[in-house]
Amino acid sequence: MGVLPRSVEKVIEELERLPGVGPKSAARMTYFLLRAPRDWSASLAEALVKMRELTVTCTECFNVADHDPCKICSDSGRDRTRLCVVEEPLDVVALELSGVFDGRYFILGGVVSPAEGIGPEQLRFDELKERVKSLLDKHVDKEELEVIIATNPSLEGEATASYIVEVLKGIDEKTAGTLKISRLAMGLPTGADLEYADRLTLKRSLEGRTRVYARGD
Amino acid sequence: MGVLPRSVEKVIEELERLPGVGPKSAARMTYFLLRAPRDWSASLAEALVKMRELTVTCTECFNVADHDPCKICSDSGRDRTRLCVVEEPLDVVALELSGVFDGRYFILGGVVSPAEGIGPEQLRFDELKERVKSLLDKHVDKEELEVIIATNPSLEGEATASYIVEVLKGIDEKTAGTLKISRLAMGLPTGADLEYADRLTLKRSLEGRTRVYARGD
Repeated sequence: MGVLPRSVEKVIEELERLPGVGPKSAARMTYFLLRAPRDWSASLAEALVKMRELTVTCTECFNVADHDPCKICSDSGRDRTRLCVVEEPLDVVALELSGVFDGRYFILGGVVSPAEGIGPEQLRFDELKERVKSLLDKHVDKEELEVIIATNPSLEGEATASYIVEVLKGIDEKTAGTLKISRLAMGLPTGADLEYADRLTLKRSLEGRTRVYARGD
Repeated sequence: MGVLPRSVEKVIEELERLPGVGPKSAARMTYFLLRAPRDWSASLAEALVKMRELTVTCTECFNVADHDPCKICSDSGRDRTRLCVVEEPLDVVALELSGVFDGRYFILGGVVSPAEGIGPEQLRFDELKERVKSLLDKHVDKEELEVIIATNPSLEGEATASYIVEVLKGIDEKTAGTLKISRLAMGLPTGADLEYADRLTLKRSLEGRTRVYARGD
């Protein structure tokens, strides 16, 4: 626009590429960095470069990691009979921080979304098949392998979950039936208010209701 | 938190320092960069470093600039009888993009805010006095100098505006009265709805009302 020094405009343009950052917030961040100690820009710059130099993709779960295989995949203390399929690395972070899951992960890399032109071939379905096959080979006739589908409860997440089920069913035909597939429960989140819940959430919380009493239980 | 590679955590921490960026959005940006072409991180890093290397502070208006004095201060085509005092460089950008002001600027560097421990001594009041004095010296007995106070219409912005008036009044006592001080008009913004306007805005739009008809006008 000519009003700003070119080098300042350039930083604004770069920051605008980031998700959730519009022109106004990019400008605010940039001027914040201009007023902050010079070290701050330098240390952000260094962190960005180092991150790309020091991280690798784990070839088992496809998470971003320090080493391949990653800490979780190489941790023999974790439950190897459960594999949780998620969309993105941040889903792993959420589950790990919650401390409710002790198995391993597989990162699909997104969801099938015809609207955005993302078909199954752009996601890691082949790699998922390979991973499940190899786990089944190790497990066959010994223990069960449970694949827990943890894609988001969005339309795309649901469609992707169905697709995962189809793909994995095909594999199980060649095994002794040790593969179980499950999907995260859907329903009302903690602290929700029925009054404000959307129709689909209500429908699912009704469909998935759990029996709490029946004479003779 | 141990769940993420250290180099990834580091980028998240650095991004969290930026205004308006919380832990969640910092994480989203970071994973976005991890998925994006490697060049993107590198080019953002380079832009950050270059910005600090290539920019200087204009010693007349205190804006961030390519050269000192900046393009605006050194533009002899601009009206030198009007000096607009703003809080931040982004205020200059807004005014320049609007194309409604053709004078020069002075960036105070913020507002007086006792709540945040920012007193007048942390802002550029001394520099403002010097700038106005030097402009008056050149103008005395020839033309008027109008200082337009364009701090934000917030409590702090108003207090700062009053303080600027006090400071500049002191200077004018030694001149031939060629100094005029004005404040941006306050009132309803374009497209506003009276129904939703806050009390203070209504009060000011009433106080600052402009006569449109009177018999005999």
